[in-house]
Amino acid sequence: MEIIKVSARSRSTAVAGAIAGVIRDWRQADVQAIGASAVNQAIKAIAIARGYLQEDGIAIVCVPLFTEVDIEGAERTAVRFTIWTVDPSALPDSLLAVAIPSQNEMRAALFD
Amino acid sequence: MEIIKVSARSRSTAVAGAIAGVIRDWRQADVQAIGASAVNQAIKAIAIARGYLQEDGIAIVCVPLFTEVDIEGAERTAVRFTIWTVDPSALPDSLLAVAIPSQNEMRAALFD
Repeated sequence: MEIIKVSARSRSTAVAGAIAGVIRDWRQADVQAIGASAVNQAIKAIAIARGYLQEDGIAIVCVPLFTEVDIEGAERTAVRFTIWTVDPSALPDSLLAVAIPSQNEMRAALFD
Repeated sequence: MEIIKVSARSRSTAVAGAIAGVIRDWRQADVQAIGASAVNQAIKAIAIARGYLQEDGIAIVCVPLFTEVDIEGAERTAVRFTIWTVDPSALPDSLLAVAIPSQNEMRAALFD
């Protein structure tokens, strides 16, 4: 399974589509980002992908962790997000209350 | 339960300590961030908190979503992270392989 690499210039909706596709195929996806802007794009993408997958009754959770990566011979600290599917009944009640993708998610997607 | 608000100037280790404390007491924590730098600090804090809690055998997962908040009368889109505890056996194998808080997490914490 390939790691989905996100940069500061990645479109969050495009990354969201990639995440949703990998999750549908593999039930797990790994996303990697280096730097604050890329991490922000990655999080937006995960939030949007959550909405896409919810429409199919698929609930996802994620865990962020630090990892060292080699970028053209230099060691950089990246954030890696592991995302996987869970039974929707395992979600906290506060998340069930926002179970329908909101207009906010759509708006944030537009302003990518 | 209070929402833990993270700004671009928040120290990620301090936020991590707050998250770990709330998780220990309530098994769930909510974190809110507005803007790329604040989102990045929040994610670093969650990654560090994951390490802290793992030492106590507590596994956490999170879900990011968009939410509208009122900041001094203006509507802003924030990212809210809901974090909660899961049975460690529910984690994907790839996360069990990095079960011990790594030096990277410690290093990232130092460079806050």
